Amino acid sequence: MSDRNISKQTIRRIPIYLQHLKDLKIKNMTIISAPSVAAELKLNEVQVRKDFAAMSTTHGKPKTGFIINELIINMESFAGYNNTNEAILVGAGSLGKALLSYKGFEIYGLDIVAAFDIDSRLTGTEISGKVIFPLTEINEISNKYNIKIGIITVPANEAQKVCDVLVCSGIMAIWNFAPVHLTVPADILVQNENMAASLAMLSKHLREHIEGK
Amino acid sequence: MSDRNISKQTIRRIPIYLQHLKDLKIKNMTIISAPSVAAELKLNEVQVRKDFAAMSTTHGKPKTGFIINELIINMESFAGYNNTNEAILVGAGSLGKALLSYKGFEIYGLDIVAAFDIDSRLTGTEISGKVIFPLTEINEISNKYNIKIGIITVPANEAQKVCDVLVCSGIMAIWNFAPVHLTVPADILVQNENMAASLAMLSKHLREHIEGK
Repeated sequence: MSDRNISKQTIRRIPIYLQHLKDLKIKNMTIISAPSVAAELKLNEVQVRKDFAAMSTTHGKPKTGFIINELIINMESFAGYNNTNEAILVGAGSLGKALLSYKGFEIYGLDIVAAFDIDSRLTGTEISGKVIFPLTEINEISNKYNIKIGIITVPANEAQKVCDVLVCSGIMAIWNFAPVHLTVPADILVQNENMAASLAMLSKHLREHIEGK
Repeated sequence: MSDRNISKQTIRRIPIYLQHLKDLKIKNMTIISAPSVAAELKLNEVQVRKDFAAMSTTHGKPKTGFIINELIINMESFAGYNNTNEAILVGAGSLGKALLSYKGFEIYGLDIVAAFDIDSRLTGTEISGKVIFPLTEINEISNKYNIKIGIITVPANEAQKVCDVLVCSGIMAIWNFAPVHLTVPADILVQNENMAASLAMLSKHLREHIEGK
């Protein structure tokens, strides 16, 4: 099944849909309508119908709705949760260590196979069974194991340099946790996880709420 | 300084601006123009000029540009990095533990003061010096310490229930790591950190790239 027609926005909604559909399945439901999902998840009805139609092989029945099991299987396939993607992580500091130790990535098909750091006191040690290598070995190891995903957890002022090394080593998709803009060739994806921006949003909301009182 | 006129989008760009401005400061620069920052960060020039004008007390000089030091101080203030926000975390599983152990939140003004979990084997223990309490004590502890931020790291099907308890306990802003839509009253902010969606994006990009070869 090709996913050329599935938009980025649809892909981002998949985890939310999946959670809801699995809940319905546990309740022994087999068919669901787009409007009822839209209402439950506070999403636009037309949008949900479009998303479901794009991800349903049978395209749903006008009167009866979409088959829950089919949607779950197809959505998991579109989200890539069925096939395992191996990744390397660069920057075994506090955040890097946390991600290396996190067991939750497995259910989403991500497997961090090795980590890299510039600090010679860290290289050669293991975190949650993953060996930390020196930065100089990124190219060799990512090529040897044909790794296509790189996770960047270095300080912001080191991130572009690390990004360049990853791209030169054949990495095609970068998960960037550094609060900095990364410049990459057109065929490389940078997915930013800007936790600093999230914290700024929380802080802004609180400040306005307290000021508003 | 009021921040009524600063948009959410501007707030989200602050960490990226700050990183760049601090780099320029290290290089002993004191003045910067919006177009040069826009070019460097691959952002829209008009947008950067608008952002800087909103966050500069002197509003910049048409010929000379904006004072870097002033921008840094004002941006840190807008992002709330100067004042500490205390938070509680609910769900001391794998991700919760990782966030409790993460030292990097301090520089963004976030201090997680206590954690909560339903698992009685965890309650009473400590992670990185933070005590884990039973869920039943959320209300008492958040009121006692006047906590306004709640971090949700429970499984998706528990998240709404936990969210309701947090809102009833006076929490005003929720940082939600569960891949699920949360329903809250209008004055409560939910900031979603959907790592599952990020992973789906990475996987989609790789699949398309490999299929495209």
